[in-house]
Amino acid sequence: MKKIDKVMIVGGTHGNEFTGIYLIKKYQKFPHLISRSNFETFTLFANPKSFELVKRYVETDLNRCFKIEDLANPDLIKYEQLLAKKIAQHFAQEKIDFTIDLHSTTSNMGLTIIVDDNFVVLQLAAYLNSINPSVKILQYSSAINQKSHLRSLGNFNLAIEVGAIANGVLEAKLFQETEILIQQILDYIELSNQDKKPILPDKCTVYRQLTNIGYPRDENGEIKAMIAPELQDYQPLKKGDRLFLDFNGEEITYQGDSVVYPVFISEAAYIEKSVAMSLTEKLQIQL
Amino acid sequence: MKKIDKVMIVGGTHGNEFTGIYLIKKYQKFPHLISRSNFETFTLFANPKSFELVKRYVETDLNRCFKIEDLANPDLIKYEQLLAKKIAQHFAQEKIDFTIDLHSTTSNMGLTIIVDDNFVVLQLAAYLNSINPSVKILQYSSAINQKSHLRSLGNFNLAIEVGAIANGVLEAKLFQETEILIQQILDYIELSNQDKKPILPDKCTVYRQLTNIGYPRDENGEIKAMIAPELQDYQPLKKGDRLFLDFNGEEITYQGDSVVYPVFISEAAYIEKSVAMSLTEKLQIQL
Repeated sequence: MKKIDKVMIVGGTHGNEFTGIYLIKKYQKFPHLISRSNFETFTLFANPKSFELVKRYVETDLNRCFKIEDLANPDLIKYEQLLAKKIAQHFAQEKIDFTIDLHSTTSNMGLTIIVDDNFVVLQLAAYLNSINPSVKILQYSSAINQKSHLRSLGNFNLAIEVGAIANGVLEAKLFQETEILIQQILDYIELSNQDKKPILPDKCTVYRQLTNIGYPRDENGEIKAMIAPELQDYQPLKKGDRLFLDFNGEEITYQGDSVVYPVFISEAAYIEKSVAMSLTEKLQIQL
Repeated sequence: MKKIDKVMIVGGTHGNEFTGIYLIKKYQKFPHLISRSNFETFTLFANPKSFELVKRYVETDLNRCFKIEDLANPDLIKYEQLLAKKIAQHFAQEKIDFTIDLHSTTSNMGLTIIVDDNFVVLQLAAYLNSINPSVKILQYSSAINQKSHLRSLGNFNLAIEVGAIANGVLEAKLFQETEILIQQILDYIELSNQDKKPILPDKCTVYRQLTNIGYPRDENGEIKAMIAPELQDYQPLKKGDRLFLDFNGEEITYQGDSVVYPVFISEAAYIEKSVAMSLTEKLQIQL
């Protein structure tokens, strides 16, 4: 692994996800908690204005504003579009190598590490899963997301996604579990920088994003069905299983041929994006 | 029980509590579900504008705007203050006897019936608890709440409070359980109107609101501690039990002499009201 010189921990990319925001506040008060011997650690409270409003964003989702062409487009002047340009400039000036972006979700996903196609970061995620098997690895498709996320500013990057936490709520258990994950990540980077990387498992389980599924809507665009109550994040969904229940009691079933694993079931913020859940495939990857 | 002629079911008093809103939409589409032989049932989607914004309210909490002196005060002209006057007028014109207001909470409270001091409604709640023991009865103090809630427009009234549900999320299981409760309430009123009230238990357990507890805050007013993760709604809290954990790991313990039962633990909307939880006493009431 190439030596990492500068790590950025980001919270408050969404103003109503309190876990990351209060962790950043804690680290800014007690910076020794995140300092390590062979790299620098920075913190960023990304969108304090949206936190004041206890909203995901002021005008548009900051975490969709980081496509390279959008950052270069002078016509994009919504509040978060301007904020994204400022944040990108800050990352470039500081020469950030590694970005850790802290999120929470209303879905019951437990502890999830979201990675992209970077194998070095996948190894790190596999290490986290090997010491705590409840940590899931979710691999995002760049095709679907087009590097629009804040974390893509780091050459190496991951997001920590924890839930279920309602928006605007500070929840001690997942706060502490996120804090432990951050310690483990920083320790791993410190060891890797000394070529003393911990022993990794031979392989790991990865949930790779396939596609998003929207809510059924009526002719006025109104949601006309609920997600079936038995659906659970990271649990298999097979052809014929119930996906949605109509308000008249009718069922809509899954019709895909392969077994898939839904995640982000009932994530509140995704309703406006017309996403009821995200489907993944479950893979074993050799390390 | 005095004969009930007109029942009003209200959803969307808070625009981000989707259970009640989608139930009202369902009832407006299928009114036969709530029609009964000896009284009229009405529905009200109280604050559609806040639903469009997926916010609790537009300018101020509608469910604190119904004090009689506030309704009569011409200087109160925030959006929800005006809306409250209009709703109060509607209830008066329709001569509503009984109000059922549908709410959800980010606290893990399960199914709760909130009542005031009306003994007839307490009997109804005791009946609901007798057929489904997981239904809790929470009695609000008029002293703390000063009849500021929408439901106080009905001479007889209750709120159904279900959780945990994140704001802005439609959740099938609690939706269906709320729907069953409404059916049971309407059936009970129908039987009572015929003097065929179902057999009631001899006594019931009531959690009576005592006081609210705020978050510890620093000199800038910022929250400086989290609710201890082991705290659970409706579970006993004794002197010396942990209440909060400071970000430096220090504990703040409960110092009251009597055993109390917290509810609304981590309700997102109450953070702005400086309420971390509400404390209740557990009572057995003879019926």
